[in-house]
Amino acid sequence: MDTDLNLTQHISNRFNEELEGVRNLALNMGGLVEKQVSDGLKALLKAKSKLGEKVASSDYKVNAMEVDIDEQCTLILARRQPAASDLRLVISIIKTITDLERIGDEAEQLGIYAIKLADDNIKPSQFVELRHLGEHVKGMLHDALDAFARMDVGAALATIESSATLKEEYDAISRQLILQMMEDPRQIKNALSVHWCARSLERIGDHSENICEYVVYLVKGRDVRHVSLDEMKAELEE
Amino acid sequence: MDTDLNLTQHISNRFNEELEGVRNLALNMGGLVEKQVSDGLKALLKAKSKLGEKVASSDYKVNAMEVDIDEQCTLILARRQPAASDLRLVISIIKTITDLERIGDEAEQLGIYAIKLADDNIKPSQFVELRHLGEHVKGMLHDALDAFARMDVGAALATIESSATLKEEYDAISRQLILQMMEDPRQIKNALSVHWCARSLERIGDHSENICEYVVYLVKGRDVRHVSLDEMKAELEE
Repeated sequence: MDTDLNLTQHISNRFNEELEGVRNLALNMGGLVEKQVSDGLKALLKAKSKLGEKVASSDYKVNAMEVDIDEQCTLILARRQPAASDLRLVISIIKTITDLERIGDEAEQLGIYAIKLADDNIKPSQFVELRHLGEHVKGMLHDALDAFARMDVGAALATIESSATLKEEYDAISRQLILQMMEDPRQIKNALSVHWCARSLERIGDHSENICEYVVYLVKGRDVRHVSLDEMKAELEE
Repeated sequence: MDTDLNLTQHISNRFNEELEGVRNLALNMGGLVEKQVSDGLKALLKAKSKLGEKVASSDYKVNAMEVDIDEQCTLILARRQPAASDLRLVISIIKTITDLERIGDEAEQLGIYAIKLADDNIKPSQFVELRHLGEHVKGMLHDALDAFARMDVGAALATIESSATLKEEYDAISRQLILQMMEDPRQIKNALSVHWCARSLERIGDHSENICEYVVYLVKGRDVRHVSLDEMKAELEE
């Protein structure tokens, strides 16, 4: 943990408990979202219709957590008027849960397509690339949440770096699916469903990257969105 | 404007100027994003490659505005420690600009696909439905920004209500494109591009709806995300 953070300064007081509480809630929400993504992907790759239904019908839990955490953050801002790194923590949480909620939406989509594809007896497990993309994205989300939990800038930057191949992997799937559609036009509808899933996975990767950027902001006080990785590293070394 | 808002209470002081300043910046960002969407759609429907390039290469302006406004909001939170409706205003702005930035990303996508489609001599103007969806979404974004500018809950709810047909319009385009792909597999790649554009437009509609929800939160202090329109209305009448 970076020494710049003054979380420990008001240890044992009520304010610190509130900050820790809301941070823990965000981490719990992260855990739930991670499970949703993992289950959504499993339902998809193993054509498990029931699991798909479970994922598609559980998004309300994620949404409820977002609203609850947002409210608690607003209360802290209003009552405690945090400054410096405490303020950054609250702002980072507000931003992180927005991305988590949207990851939840994408996981819901994975669940919905898993049901459709399973009902059509399509097992996308044949698409090795989709599995690879899925595992990559799952790993990114896990690492992003881990970097957030440990406030670890190095891990956040490494996760952002690992996203470099995401676009290529997605493009490869896209090309493969287009070929497949052209070869067998009866498969167009299902291939499109797989395509949407790949897109959802890519977006989950993007949101994970956003979370890593908030970690950098939280710990270093620098806004590194829309900054290239090289510039980011150079700026943080200053 | 709702009388609940105390924007006028600290009129003529420095704090009020700061709040007004950041609100105006957010409105300017909204105007820029609106123009990006409008140009992106025009480039697409009229197969204007140059205009598509302009849209695709202007997203950095939207990004820079997001970072700037975010920073100013954080400064206000740290220095002024706003409460009640002032705090809600700052939080609404932080959330609104996140959605605006993502609308900017979708507009960029429209620009990129406009270039591709124009280069392939495809004029998607033949897709009457895409034009309809585009006009609908453009209107929603405009109304959402208007509701935000005037802090008008009624207008915000009307805009949310108008989104009800968005999904149907999108599904109609999707079905039409699948048919088209099946009839002429050589058109698969271009039809997919049009499909992505429809998806981008649908997402712009979703983000516009989010902005309307922040307007309700700002004026009424109620978080109405993930709440159905009927529940929303009932809750606001309480």
